[in-house]
Amino acid sequence: MSTVIRGGLVVSPAGAAAADVLVEGERIAAVADPGSALAQAWATAADRTIDATGKYVLPGGIDAHTHMEMPFGGTHSVDTFATGTAAAAWGGTTTIIDFAVQVKGTSLLSTLDKWHAKADGNCAIDYGFHMIVSDVNDESLKEMEACIGAGVNTFKMFMAYPGVFYSTDGEILRAMQRARETGSMVMMHAENGIAIDQLVAQALASGRTDPVHHSLTRPPELEGEATSRAIQLAKVTGAPLYIVHLSASQALAAVAAARDTGQNVYAETCPQYLYLSIEDMAKPDFEGAKYVASPPLREKSHQGDLWRGLRTNDLSVVSTDHCPFCFKDQKELGRGDFSKIPNGIPGVEHRMDLLHQGVVGGELSLSRWVEVASATPARMFGLYPRKGVIAAGSDADIVVYDPTAKQRISAATHHMNVDYSAYEGMEITGQVSTVLSRGEIVIDGGEFHGKAGHGKFLSRDRSQYLI
Amino acid sequence: MSTVIRGGLVVSPAGAAAADVLVEGERIAAVADPGSALAQAWATAADRTIDATGKYVLPGGIDAHTHMEMPFGGTHSVDTFATGTAAAAWGGTTTIIDFAVQVKGTSLLSTLDKWHAKADGNCAIDYGFHMIVSDVNDESLKEMEACIGAGVNTFKMFMAYPGVFYSTDGEILRAMQRARETGSMVMMHAENGIAIDQLVAQALASGRTDPVHHSLTRPPELEGEATSRAIQLAKVTGAPLYIVHLSASQALAAVAAARDTGQNVYAETCPQYLYLSIEDMAKPDFEGAKYVASPPLREKSHQGDLWRGLRTNDLSVVSTDHCPFCFKDQKELGRGDFSKIPNGIPGVEHRMDLLHQGVVGGELSLSRWVEVASATPARMFGLYPRKGVIAAGSDADIVVYDPTAKQRISAATHHMNVDYSAYEGMEITGQVSTVLSRGEIVIDGGEFHGKAGHGKFLSRDRSQYLI
Amino acid sequence: MSTVIRGGLVVSPAGAAAADVLVEGERIAAVADPGSALAQAWATAADRTIDATGKYVLPGGIDAHTHMEMPFGGTHSVDTFATGTAAAAWGGTTTIIDFAVQVKGTSLLSTLDKWHAKADGNCAIDYGFHMIVSDVNDESLKEMEACIGAGVNTFKMFMAYPGVFYSTDGEILRAMQRARETGSMVMMHAENGIAIDQLVAQALASGRTDPVHHSLTRPPELEGEATSRAIQLAKVTGAPLYIVHLSASQALAAVAAARDTGQNVYAETCPQYLYLSIEDMAKPDFEGAKYVASPPLREKSHQGDLWRGLRTNDLSVVSTDHCPFCFKDQKELGRGDFSKIPNGIPGVEHRMDLLHQGVVGGELSLSRWVEVASATPARMFGLYPRKGVIAAGSDADIVVYDPTAKQRISAATHHMNVDYSAYEGMEITGQVSTVLSRGEIVIDGGEFHGKAGHGKFLSRDRSQYLI
Amino acid sequence: MSTVIRGGLVVSPAGAAAADVLVEGERIAAVADPGSALAQAWATAADRTIDATGKYVLPGGIDAHTHMEMPFGGTHSVDTFATGTAAAAWGGTTTIIDFAVQVKGTSLLSTLDKWHAKADGNCAIDYGFHMIVSDVNDESLKEMEACIGAGVNTFKMFMAYPGVFYSTDGEILRAMQRARETGSMVMMHAENGIAIDQLVAQALASGRTDPVHHSLTRPPELEGEATSRAIQLAKVTGAPLYIVHLSASQALAAVAAARDTGQNVYAETCPQYLYLSIEDMAKPDFEGAKYVASPPLREKSHQGDLWRGLRTNDLSVVSTDHCPFCFKDQKELGRGDFSKIPNGIPGVEHRMDLLHQGVVGGELSLSRWVEVASATPARMFGLYPRKGVIAAGSDADIVVYDPTAKQRISAATHHMNVDYSAYEGMEITGQVSTVLSRGEIVIDGGEFHGKAGHGKFLSRDRSQYLI
Repeated sequence: MSTVIRGGLVVSPAGAAAADVLVEGERIAAVADPGSALAQAWATAADRTIDATGKYVLPGGIDAHTHMEMPFGGTHSVDTFATGTAAAAWGGTTTIIDFAVQVKGTSLLSTLDKWHAKADGNCAIDYGFHMIVSDVNDESLKEMEACIGAGVNTFKMFMAYPGVFYSTDGEILRAMQRARETGSMVMMHAENGIAIDQLVAQALASGRTDPVHHSLTRPPELEGEATSRAIQLAKVTGAPLYIVHLSASQALAAVAAARDTGQNVYAETCPQYLYLSIEDMAKPDFEGAKYVASPPLREKSHQGDLWRGLRTNDLSVVSTDHCPFCFKDQKELGRGDFSKIPNGIPGVEHRMDLLHQGVVGGELSLSRWVEVASATPARMFGLYPRKGVIAAGSDADIVVYDPTAKQRISAATHHMNVDYSAYEGMEITGQVSTVLSRGEIVIDGGEFHGKAGHGKFLSRDRSQYLI
Repeated sequence: MSTVIRGGLVVSPAGAAAADVLVEGERIAAVADPGSALAQAWATAADRTIDATGKYVLPGGIDAHTHMEMPFGGTHSVDTFATGTAAAAWGGTTTIIDFAVQVKGTSLLSTLDKWHAKADGNCAIDYGFHMIVSDVNDESLKEMEACIGAGVNTFKMFMAYPGVFYSTDGEILRAMQRARETGSMVMMHAENGIAIDQLVAQALASGRTDPVHHSLTRPPELEGEATSRAIQLAKVTGAPLYIVHLSASQALAAVAAARDTGQNVYAETCPQYLYLSIEDMAKPDFEGAKYVASPPLREKSHQGDLWRGLRTNDLSVVSTDHCPFCFKDQKELGRGDFSKIPNGIPGVEHRMDLLHQGVVGGELSLSRWVEVASATPARMFGLYPRKGVIAAGSDADIVVYDPTAKQRISAATHHMNVDYSAYEGMEITGQVSTVLSRGEIVIDGGEFHGKAGHGKFLSRDRSQYLI
Repeated sequence: MSTVIRGGLVVSPAGAAAADVLVEGERIAAVADPGSALAQAWATAADRTIDATGKYVLPGGIDAHTHMEMPFGGTHSVDTFATGTAAAAWGGTTTIIDFAVQVKGTSLLSTLDKWHAKADGNCAIDYGFHMIVSDVNDESLKEMEACIGAGVNTFKMFMAYPGVFYSTDGEILRAMQRARETGSMVMMHAENGIAIDQLVAQALASGRTDPVHHSLTRPPELEGEATSRAIQLAKVTGAPLYIVHLSASQALAAVAAARDTGQNVYAETCPQYLYLSIEDMAKPDFEGAKYVASPPLREKSHQGDLWRGLRTNDLSVVSTDHCPFCFKDQKELGRGDFSKIPNGIPGVEHRMDLLHQGVVGGELSLSRWVEVASATPARMFGLYPRKGVIAAGSDADIVVYDPTAKQRISAATHHMNVDYSAYEGMEITGQVSTVLSRGEIVIDGGEFHGKAGHGKFLSRDRSQYLI
Repeated sequence: MSTVIRGGLVVSPAGAAAADVLVEGERIAAVADPGSALAQAWATAADRTIDATGKYVLPGGIDAHTHMEMPFGGTHSVDTFATGTAAAAWGGTTTIIDFAVQVKGTSLLSTLDKWHAKADGNCAIDYGFHMIVSDVNDESLKEMEACIGAGVNTFKMFMAYPGVFYSTDGEILRAMQRARETGSMVMMHAENGIAIDQLVAQALASGRTDPVHHSLTRPPELEGEATSRAIQLAKVTGAPLYIVHLSASQALAAVAAARDTGQNVYAETCPQYLYLSIEDMAKPDFEGAKYVASPPLREKSHQGDLWRGLRTNDLSVVSTDHCPFCFKDQKELGRGDFSKIPNGIPGVEHRMDLLHQGVVGGELSLSRWVEVASATPARMFGLYPRKGVIAAGSDADIVVYDPTAKQRISAATHHMNVDYSAYEGMEITGQVSTVLSRGEIVIDGGEFHGKAGHGKFLSRDRSQYLI
């Protein structure tokens, strides 16, 4: 089976050029100059032709931060791997990397088994795993190596959530030492949870219980602080570091300063920090609960800094931290006590579109869009050049994107399994036309053609940034 | 005529992948997965096959800073466009951008004519021009637009060399305003020449006349200062800025700080600042004169900072500032008065090899090598994707590079028309095997197959960094 | 003749304490514990007793930056040394340091003679001189030593006003070298006048002629730039540096960064930058002309940074840059061309009161008020401990200040010889009760008791900051 | 009883001036101009005359950080309040502030009682207390107010020593909130003890047990990190912060950055960090144990930064952290396990002399010496102007110091109750001649005239830096 995608503008981090793409089976066989004799020949030879005239041809989006079916305080995030990966595909994302969550007292490898059991056979697109290390001890540190052998070489730790995911600085130090030794990488949720918990307790004790206090009790200085601390621990151990869901100017400044010295420090931000703010959390009637995630939404002034960070490459990646909880019954658990609101915002479906608004609005170049949403996550997480690029030999994960189409985001029309949208009513310029996953059409003509189980587990190599 | 390059590792800024490259005429028709049916078919169909097994396939190097046949104090730099471009090709560089030099009292367009007269019909590889603006006035500011129309959209100014190339801050401000209005870019030689001239006069007056005093009278603080000043003038005018031949940690710090704020500031360094130092300038018997250039060679401690700057992208490009003067009769003009030594170091032939030592030594990744030496200059100077990438539709400027070959740099064997080498005796790992310029073989099997006149003038588009 | 000042709170940079002060002749003979037997004895022994109960006893203010009878474009600033020093005394200032202005082509020593001729015999309070060096050449550089011998060891230079006071970076470098050699200090007007002149010419050419354009054509970046440049030149030469009338956050940042490294860099700001803004310059009916000075008034956002700089000691001194031109006939020269408005704002009378508002409002501590207004200028300019402190052996320049009195600033009531006030109508808390200059009462009971000629020239020692 | 000190140079933070000092009873009655009639009269009237000709007259030193009789791991620091304060006086220190140490489970007030029991009646000079808060809970937070009422308004916390003194970030946050509310101040031992303990455990496990590993397992980055963290917690709470015993360039940079923003952050360093280094810790035969303290001695490169910090006022105070343990039997407890070496270096006797070497060597001005060793600690800790200055009304704590005398430090001759000196054999220029404590002679003519019980407890006011 061969497919040729003709007439489009192929976008890469370095630029955009008219090119035709030939897919043989699951991979891209060649990219050709449309004016070449070769490309002319393809027109008739291919089994199938996709007309991309006037459209972008993008490497499929890679969302390096999702939480499908994640257990959280007695409930679960509501997207399964089936619904979540289908929604991702609808939005032009062809790879997710989800977090396997170690429960204290259990092993990393058994955790991995659990997550394989949830995902395998259910995904519409390819997927990988990061490992959340909740229980640092001699055993789990030793297991890191086996995880790496099993294709999972990124280990997330938390400086927040004492009693649940929290690791002490000593545990972080030990894990980082192991990461350095094994060529793997620690990802960090950088908020000073110990100090935050005091502020939360004080707020609740004084009757400040509304959702907005979720943000007010997690001041940006405490994200900046934790980010700096993680960076220093990384420096002491010689380990690389990846800061997840960076939301605050203070944290960005810490990352930028470290990067200026050449330290191997990277950070991602998320669409919600670029487009939403603490003002959303202050919406009446408990509406604010829809926006409760950690780190929290910030004052609007941070948004400009984050966009700038994306341009300066102090922020390298945009992921979603997709973690959907329904407003009804789930978010509502926190009425009268914001600390009981399940943390998370749905978004896996809209990342590519939301970032494209940055292109439309002049915040990002077309190339940089593709870089932060696909190429860099692929390189960062050991998937490149298999993923993240339209190039000969790469997986045929391809998005044909219509930059002029109009759409409007709404829970009524989205495909995520959640009863609200954080972006309800937002007008979007641009829309996915066609999505291929390893050569198979998943989305086309406004319809879903994918199937659960097509998506395969991605055993990831060492990050290209560590070579 | 078609050529296929098989079995090599194609390197780009984003990574490296095995791929076969098909050239039709002057351009790359396609890049294919070596395992695809398509690539198999090429094996027999192509007119010519180049075996790149075990070698890198690189986009041809782009040296964005050369001075061929440059008039200087009654003499000329000794490489003609013919000899200089041939030497460039020997070293894997397939494009140069040379500086047309306005003489005060003459027009920019007549200057351009003069440089076309020197270069056209003589070059072995493609070439473009930057324009040195020595005479800022209403006429020349107006002419900038015509220059842009003629494919020259980068205007170099000098904060050094009072009485020759020097422009006042007011003149720089005016030119920057024009650059902003026209979408062009100012390139800056950033040294405080007014203060330096005092130090030079004081040195000579006190009998400090040896070549090393060329460096001692141009302290790095005065490069840092001028760099900061140029950045502030760029900020006031809203213009982009490109700092040429950055040599000092202080200047790098100024660039890094500006870039952290998202200002459109870029900088290049040169191999001589990465490998040579003020110690070379202190060599006895006037040997130091071989290393006299401006900015001068610095203390060795700056080298580490420059390599780090290349990694952090605070330095975006490596060019040579190739400006060869023979030791005999030319450099010797400055015996007894270092200020009379013609400024310049030869290097157009060795840039790719010298930077490859950084790859071998772990200072740069393979991808970053290609980025700073080819892809970024192409993007920076409006040549991308025509140049700077191995991609369908691009010019077939291709270097097959053997990463394990050994060679030794020497004036006895180099191809530049100059009687000494600044890197005499240096052992190099890696060597060019084959060079194609727009589909034609220029270097192969240790022989030069190029011809003067093959190289064409490149009318350059707007910098991709300004889009 | 002995005087005792009883019952007051003596304020110094380190704190405030109740103490009685005994003056014998021109000097403070002793400071005593009010509870001591000694102090009790004074009560009857002294020839004169001043009751300072409930009041502050301050070392007399030192205004280190005034321009009396300054020639400017065919006119003169309107305060003579007689009127200006009397006005100073009214406001609690007992020492001024005025600027002697070298005219190009004349010598420094003849300039000094000229200024002595203006001042000697006319001043109500003590005075010193700084020397403005407009003409840097071998002669004037040599004369610096004679100036120092004559008690003038601070040399002001201009990076603005090309063609008038402007010095090139080379000239500044030479003067700084001399300063380092002789233990004297360069004071700098740091604005990039070369670039500013282009902006001014462009504004006038396009019809932007109102006073507010005086500020708009002198953007704060160009003050920041020049400040940085002066700092680098000081670093290269090893010379100390004093930045006069710093007005912009950008310049403050440059000073703070240099001071963090331990470089000998100091700066003063002026009350007008703390209290007035570009909004005043935009007042209708050419009112804005009253506020034209250089550097210009800035956006209000700079004010907070300047107050902070005073607290952090990145700003060490507050002077007035008192340079009064009448609105009528003088400021009016610039109707239709802001560049013709004489530059200067009157203020010598109100500095102590205006800064006291900072104490009242919590911006400065009581001690810091005295430090920036008296003690530091004394130490900075070689007058300490003769001036700047209430201490045994010091000159009896003493201000008894009533911190609770109320007054209102107005041209109708001020004592400066100028027809407007930049602070017209401003309500002030605090007022001078009594002023002694070298033991003589100058102001008391709301009356002037001073006399022209009491004030003596102060031959200044080396700055204490250079010891 | 009256005493006059004649002919000396009275030194203050602002300068030095010849002055005569009259003491009546415990306080300074007056300071007089030696040339005044008044001073002449004293010559005969005073009961006692001290001739200070050719000597400095200094406010007595204030050592704000000592540990007398401190319990530590089953043993005690070996100086009692009697021996320690006598040794202090020998060295020109007339006030100490010692740390009362809360044991977990006990109250702050009972702790204070315990310390009063140790000190009261035993001290040769005046003394105050800081309170170490080891147990943060509702009770102890409430008790802070009573402590303040009892004259102890500074509360030290530890980010190191988990299980002993360590407080979590949440506890620190709570204590800082209380400090802000009550106008008191938190002092911080800023090292990341949680991470350090891992490094210590790893070192011991791998057989790295020598004293030098005490330093190697406490890298300067982890002091810099903790300092930054404390600063951010202070920022979030709006509280002031005082960093004790700052030893590392990284920590200094964090303090300097905070101070540039105007945050109320202060730091002290100690003589051992200025003069000793990790090289001392590597001395053979377990000699290194003599230098074991926390933070540890650093690489020599830090010393220059610390001296610079003292000049720039980013370091405001020099204290000793005097905590003497004998080499024999005490330090020796850690043979074979550096973590068992009692932490502490003796020094209370030599602080003034050691800092005077900085004056001799040009690192500090004479005025700055007095400022960091006496005036600032007095102001910082609510003792000014009672202590810290030679001024009318102040306590007559006076040191007559001979700047040209020579001495040599040795355990054989020092007066501290400890069997070694960290500065053994060091040649010192300058020596105390006479010491008065509240008007009484304690040291004179090389003899101790003091008596246990003369020294009184100092109930301290709010820090002047918080007014």
